[in-house]
Amino acid sequence: MTRRSPSGAAVLRSDTTDAITRAVLETLAEVGIGRLSMEAVAKRAGVGKSALYRRWPSKTAMVIAVLSDFSVELAATPDTGSLRDDIRESVEALRLWLDHPLFSRILPDLVAESGRNPELAELHTRMIGVPRRERAAEIFARARDRGEIAEGTDIELAMDLLAGPVYWRSAVRAQPVDAAYLDSVSDAIVALVTPGSHRDDEIDARAR
Amino acid sequence: MTRRSPSGAAVLRSDTTDAITRAVLETLAEVGIGRLSMEAVAKRAGVGKSALYRRWPSKTAMVIAVLSDFSVELAATPDTGSLRDDIRESVEALRLWLDHPLFSRILPDLVAESGRNPELAELHTRMIGVPRRERAAEIFARARDRGEIAEGTDIELAMDLLAGPVYWRSAVRAQPVDAAYLDSVSDAIVALVTPGSHRDDEIDARAR
Repeated sequence: MTRRSPSGAAVLRSDTTDAITRAVLETLAEVGIGRLSMEAVAKRAGVGKSALYRRWPSKTAMVIAVLSDFSVELAATPDTGSLRDDIRESVEALRLWLDHPLFSRILPDLVAESGRNPELAELHTRMIGVPRRERAAEIFARARDRGEIAEGTDIELAMDLLAGPVYWRSAVRAQPVDAAYLDSVSDAIVALVTPGSHRDDEIDARAR
Repeated sequence: MTRRSPSGAAVLRSDTTDAITRAVLETLAEVGIGRLSMEAVAKRAGVGKSALYRRWPSKTAMVIAVLSDFSVELAATPDTGSLRDDIRESVEALRLWLDHPLFSRILPDLVAESGRNPELAELHTRMIGVPRRERAAEIFARARDRGEIAEGTDIELAMDLLAGPVYWRSAVRAQPVDAAYLDSVSDAIVALVTPGSHRDDEIDARAR
């Protein structure tokens, strides 16, 4: 994976914003969204609460903005010219996101809180889920343009098959996700979406 | 899906145990493991705290015992004679488990708390994850005995590909999991593990 140089927005970000961002991530990992207080974040960042409210109108807005910046930046959009290599880079980036020392404790908590809080769920989907998924969709769109993808392939399912097992294994089963596992997931996705492999079987099965 | 008649253990279970079980599930769904108190469960079940401590030594033991009974009972072990039909019944049972009105709010919270509490994580794996996975493994073992599974198939990966996307879609993405989706997941797993589809491509890809 190549590391991109910082974007304009990142360069312009002030030291204060960086300190707040880190404080939000550390506090979320420690206590979760439910118990996070603006006081605790301000204290950890070494700023006043007013510095937080100047940037965001509420705790939920602050949490989602910080998690969205963090998460969308980490979504890979490789363009290697090969679907298999693009998928392999994507699942590696996914693993780095899910296994991040702070974020690995934050996402399961965000998922749990979203189940209880519809406003948070809607923001979570709109600010994190959708933009990350759009990046993954680009990989499949380019592969389709190159003729690498079978007619009638369900790209929505392919994207769930890419992300789901890695999250299931890492966060739910608490099992290690190593390079061999990511290779196997990548190979499975490619086999499913590539023409001439098994699509006839699948169409038969659907017609039953 | 056929509903099994109650097992011997279920028949012997007292009304009190049933009331406690329901109180634990309802309280977990409402406030989560972190904020669940023995007092609240006892009050909701209409029993004294001593009734809880006679059954379980601690809050964690109580929560895991209740969730294990609930979750392992709901794991399907269909034996239709066809891998595709067995998988389809399994993902249907998985959906019923994940979308259960109470449990859909409990599992994400259990996952989040397990990330912070290694004792809970170990119990969660041992009492829920492992026994459910053993049931899923039986389906693949029988299919292998019938010659339905390709040589060298990675059954561990197949089980993650079965459960992961359904959890990802239902709990993390908060999107509906309908019958057509479960059909597609089932077809994808069958295509991946069935001989003569694409295994040669995959072996080539792994040799790279």
